[in-house]
Amino acid sequence: MNNNERYFSERSKPLKASAIREMFKLMADPAVISLAGGSPAPELFPGEELSKIAGKILMTNPTGALQYGTTDGYKPLKELVAERVRKIGSIKEGDKLIITTGAQQGIDLAAKALVNEGEPVVVEAPTFVGTLNSLRSYQAKLIGVKMDDDGMNMEALEEALKNNNVKLIYTIPTFQNPSGITMSLEKRKKLLALAEQYDAVILEDNPYGDLRFAGTDIPTVKSMDTSGRVIYVGTFSKILSPGMRIGYVIANADFVDKIEVLKQANDVHTPLLTQMMAAEFLKKYDIDQYIEKSRKLYGEKCAFMLECMDKYFPNTVSYTRPQGGLFIMCTMPEGTDSNKILAECLKEKVAFVAGNSFEVDADKPANYFRLNYSTMPNEKIEQGIKAIGKVLKEQLG
Amino acid sequence: MNNNERYFSERSKPLKASAIREMFKLMADPAVISLAGGSPAPELFPGEELSKIAGKILMTNPTGALQYGTTDGYKPLKELVAERVRKIGSIKEGDKLIITTGAQQGIDLAAKALVNEGEPVVVEAPTFVGTLNSLRSYQAKLIGVKMDDDGMNMEALEEALKNNNVKLIYTIPTFQNPSGITMSLEKRKKLLALAEQYDAVILEDNPYGDLRFAGTDIPTVKSMDTSGRVIYVGTFSKILSPGMRIGYVIANADFVDKIEVLKQANDVHTPLLTQMMAAEFLKKYDIDQYIEKSRKLYGEKCAFMLECMDKYFPNTVSYTRPQGGLFIMCTMPEGTDSNKILAECLKEKVAFVAGNSFEVDADKPANYFRLNYSTMPNEKIEQGIKAIGKVLKEQLG
Repeated sequence: MNNNERYFSERSKPLKASAIREMFKLMADPAVISLAGGSPAPELFPGEELSKIAGKILMTNPTGALQYGTTDGYKPLKELVAERVRKIGSIKEGDKLIITTGAQQGIDLAAKALVNEGEPVVVEAPTFVGTLNSLRSYQAKLIGVKMDDDGMNMEALEEALKNNNVKLIYTIPTFQNPSGITMSLEKRKKLLALAEQYDAVILEDNPYGDLRFAGTDIPTVKSMDTSGRVIYVGTFSKILSPGMRIGYVIANADFVDKIEVLKQANDVHTPLLTQMMAAEFLKKYDIDQYIEKSRKLYGEKCAFMLECMDKYFPNTVSYTRPQGGLFIMCTMPEGTDSNKILAECLKEKVAFVAGNSFEVDADKPANYFRLNYSTMPNEKIEQGIKAIGKVLKEQLG
Repeated sequence: MNNNERYFSERSKPLKASAIREMFKLMADPAVISLAGGSPAPELFPGEELSKIAGKILMTNPTGALQYGTTDGYKPLKELVAERVRKIGSIKEGDKLIITTGAQQGIDLAAKALVNEGEPVVVEAPTFVGTLNSLRSYQAKLIGVKMDDDGMNMEALEEALKNNNVKLIYTIPTFQNPSGITMSLEKRKKLLALAEQYDAVILEDNPYGDLRFAGTDIPTVKSMDTSGRVIYVGTFSKILSPGMRIGYVIANADFVDKIEVLKQANDVHTPLLTQMMAAEFLKKYDIDQYIEKSRKLYGEKCAFMLECMDKYFPNTVSYTRPQGGLFIMCTMPEGTDSNKILAECLKEKVAFVAGNSFEVDADKPANYFRLNYSTMPNEKIEQGIKAIGKVLKEQLG
């Protein structure tokens, strides 16, 4: 049995490990300056608070934390999340909420619930690699719709909807991954109108919505949905802890019921201790005050990275100037292969994510890359950007 | 949009909530005596130990527990699990190990990695409902192979393999769910030989292997595999805590690599805190001593339940006498519908799981049911068995 390939399902055959996750292995080398990840700043983790909370839960209610739980999630956490989300209008009458093992599971099970083999799904081009891989694993036909500075190009979207029987449109409207772009209010309304017209479901992924450090909030797509066609995915990964793996899906009850059945067969339920810890944290502490710290820090770090880029990057490259989130996207002249630039930068011990990872066709070279500013100290940011700038100048001539 | 059914994928349409998980909701009524679950005894949970461990981890290494981790799992836990499993021969050269969010995720992703729509998969009849639902969600063609007192009927298995191009054989060889039956050594060898002959992969699920309270251990199927065709799934759910959701898959590296890629797109990684807690527990405490307590307790409870059944059940029903695990299967005269018996028992405030849940065709009435003895105190076990006995006598005449 040297070749196990023949045992693999068709859906799993084309899947490769995410370049970003693989990059995590590189990051184990402390000499590497990684601008590759999408991790929150570790100095913001409320370790002491969560330590006390975890200790107390297990001491006073061990059975609650250690026994099996219900698939839909720990009830007090569900209620607290609903309360938070209600403030931004992302939960409505007729909706249900389910806790998932990170937003990734919410996305994965929504895809599993909806997408048949070969069915067209619209994604932003570029978009989050985790969603691309999940959709690939259900053999979706991926259709990338190009991005403008204010979100998905609506003409391209309409064209895609007109020419394909699209069931699902996936979007990260706010501080998009990898671009940092935020979809304008007008485009959000247009997106809803087009989904209505072409009877498509929208999967709105909002991991970064809380992390605005400039400009003013724009309503979520879900909050403006009047026909129950938006499935909303949220997470605590960027505002509390990604290692706890707590996400949630909010949608019309029909959708959530189906996702719940699929979750039963996927992991039975999300671990209880971390759910209970999140609930206790929300009850005991003012998470908004804590988020405020994140906003301030990321705003400063983003500004600093942009300053360094202005200083060290050649003017043949352009980049986004996000108002929140964790990422800056940097575009090089057409025809440049970001993977070649990455290879050169890795020699200088600096890592980022090459653009092709975020593309429907990941084998095709892409002329852009993603930079993250949330985890590295400023001196490393400067050192890293300087090194990338040097490579860019050498390589782009 | 009153009918969202039309949006659902073909794979998700037939899936219904597991009757067992639904039963959990009933169990919220403290007046109900539930012999339905498959939960470990809550009095065995080492709450105090885990409280100290969790508190310390979050205090001394908050970033380790709260930041993103690698998809394959927390390395020290992987090493400790490998060490344990090596003692029973279930990990070999060329194998890899991956931590999963409960054994359920291991089963689900193994199915996703291997099974194409319409492909024949052999399962024991009856078998674990979680696996049935997972296989259904990948549109496997399920083939049930009947059980003898010493495991799968090998003639029926060979017949199934001969007549179908079976890629995967799913088995719980030790203290099977729901039957409590253990596959004999001869049958394990025959199973391997048949898998070899018909080139099928074996998915060996072993959640109860540590819980033997009578008889002697039989080698795992994995330990006797010489061609890398057994995917082994284990879990801490029955020996430490199900709420922590920590399982693992061990198999030839090809299989585990594929499962890792699918896990990336499914939940990125299993929550870190609970993985670190399990590792610390294994390091600091003698889990075998703790397992010894579980064995003793379950042995006593099983014996007590069987005693009650001998006393209160009519002799028209027969039942298994397991040497370990958590379940007794009770068979009524042919033609009896266990769901009708369950409905009557629920009126008496006693719950168990009706047999049809464990069948490939769950809509067909089954003449057996599953009883669990691990969670209820003895007086409730007697009260429950007495009530079921009364219903059985009334209903079976």
